[in-house]
Amino acid sequence: MASNTAQTFAKNNPIKTDFPRVVVYCGADAKIHQSSLFYLHLFWAIIEKGRKLGFEMIPLMDTRPEKGRFGAPPEMVQIEKAGSIDGYVAIMAYDSMVEWIRETGKPLTVLNGSSPDVGFDMKEMAEMSIRRLAAQGAHSLGLMIPPEMANAEVLEMLDEVSEELNITINYEWIMVSHKPMEIKGYHQFQSLWDLKSKPDGLLIYPDVMSRGVVSAIVERRLCVPEDLKLILHRNAESPYVVPFPCDWIEMSADPIADGLLEALQAKLQGKQLPMRWIHFKLVPSERLAGF
Amino acid sequence: MASNTAQTFAKNNPIKTDFPRVVVYCGADAKIHQSSLFYLHLFWAIIEKGRKLGFEMIPLMDTRPEKGRFGAPPEMVQIEKAGSIDGYVAIMAYDSMVEWIRETGKPLTVLNGSSPDVGFDMKEMAEMSIRRLAAQGAHSLGLMIPPEMANAEVLEMLDEVSEELNITINYEWIMVSHKPMEIKGYHQFQSLWDLKSKPDGLLIYPDVMSRGVVSAIVERRLCVPEDLKLILHRNAESPYVVPFPCDWIEMSADPIADGLLEALQAKLQGKQLPMRWIHFKLVPSERLAGF
Repeated sequence: MASNTAQTFAKNNPIKTDFPRVVVYCGADAKIHQSSLFYLHLFWAIIEKGRKLGFEMIPLMDTRPEKGRFGAPPEMVQIEKAGSIDGYVAIMAYDSMVEWIRETGKPLTVLNGSSPDVGFDMKEMAEMSIRRLAAQGAHSLGLMIPPEMANAEVLEMLDEVSEELNITINYEWIMVSHKPMEIKGYHQFQSLWDLKSKPDGLLIYPDVMSRGVVSAIVERRLCVPEDLKLILHRNAESPYVVPFPCDWIEMSADPIADGLLEALQAKLQGKQLPMRWIHFKLVPSERLAGF
Repeated sequence: MASNTAQTFAKNNPIKTDFPRVVVYCGADAKIHQSSLFYLHLFWAIIEKGRKLGFEMIPLMDTRPEKGRFGAPPEMVQIEKAGSIDGYVAIMAYDSMVEWIRETGKPLTVLNGSSPDVGFDMKEMAEMSIRRLAAQGAHSLGLMIPPEMANAEVLEMLDEVSEELNITINYEWIMVSHKPMEIKGYHQFQSLWDLKSKPDGLLIYPDVMSRGVVSAIVERRLCVPEDLKLILHRNAESPYVVPFPCDWIEMSADPIADGLLEALQAKLQGKQLPMRWIHFKLVPSERLAGF
């Protein structure tokens, strides 16, 4: 039935419709990125919200192994046969993965890469976390962060704020990891705790690192928040449970999807919006109240 | 460049190719299922392995909200325009979600649903786990399992094996949960541990439940394996870290993908293979050796 319905629908519908046809490209490779689940939520949110805006949304997950991604994915042949594309949204994609889109000259909005339309306000998030940890009584702070967060602007802010609040941030406590993974979080915390001097406050980003850190903390039989104050990242769409009270730095797929679609709507009208910053939310532990 | 390449490719290629065109349908809704990451790995594995077999593999993730899935997804219009489909593979899909495929009369292999081509050997897994827990010194056993595992065959086996091994399995320790989630695992363990009598061995399936259970165990300050022997499920593609030694019941996407594709190859030749059972692997904790 439905297959016939699809064929009938195809026959009765002109190639060009009134609804802008938008391809949503997702470059996340589940094999490599443990954060893929969040990007799946985001992918979903963009498609749902786009449909509500009246776009014809075409999902395009790149299922080629990450090393074999040259040019358009083979699925584009079929997508282009069904009509011309008006615009593109790309997530979890390096610059090189979307080069074939840029070459079409069609409007494209991107989350990652060198000229994003939407970006995470990492500096604000780090500052918010440090002030919160200091307010909770931490005197020395460590951070586990991804490379995109370990830039001059953030490091300068760390210097300034630590001086203002009279807290110590030793550079050996700033641990940067490429391709975050749970097991890396576990080992990074173990090395941090093998140091002669250790911080009494810690910010961990992103969630996949946090989960390994939590296991290492439990193994070391540390008490949170008495021995160590913690702020962990989580996505609103994939919360997780930890066995002690800690605060959260929360991100959600919704504003990211909104930002990418708004930027695309503007581009479809020949306009360019300024880059939109997505802000993290500080969510205090409900359980901390009991302490 | 690549977009033009895609168009040229489409022009130069006849609608019907020598490679069987296979649509891989994934019904996982990331919003609802925390296990979606495993199904993403499986989706990927099927597509990669299918391409190696010489099939033209067409990924089709159903991005409609789960409640609005009637008939074929809109993307089928484009896929059918590009040529006829020779076969289908469906994962993470209820019977109702693949009804439109069955109505095409084309070969279809499925993992879930009422007549699967590939199934998990849950009974064998449960028996293997019980024998292992008993060998580790457990005298009483609890289980957290999904409804598809709580069938007469498994329950009968539990009776027989517990009698043979002289261990107790109280029915109140068999906790069944629909739509497994981390927070459910957490609360189920808390209720289990509020009971007057508790088991000293526990099997938890699947991994998303386990993660919540681990947090609850740590909160209760229980020692594993001294107070409680544990066997947790994990997928080989998404391992996780726990802060104590425990054994694992491991599943992997590879043999599932192989089984579905072999069954499809047979159906394309007009043959029907018997249902293939996928076996779990017992992976002893490396750390248990130290105890």
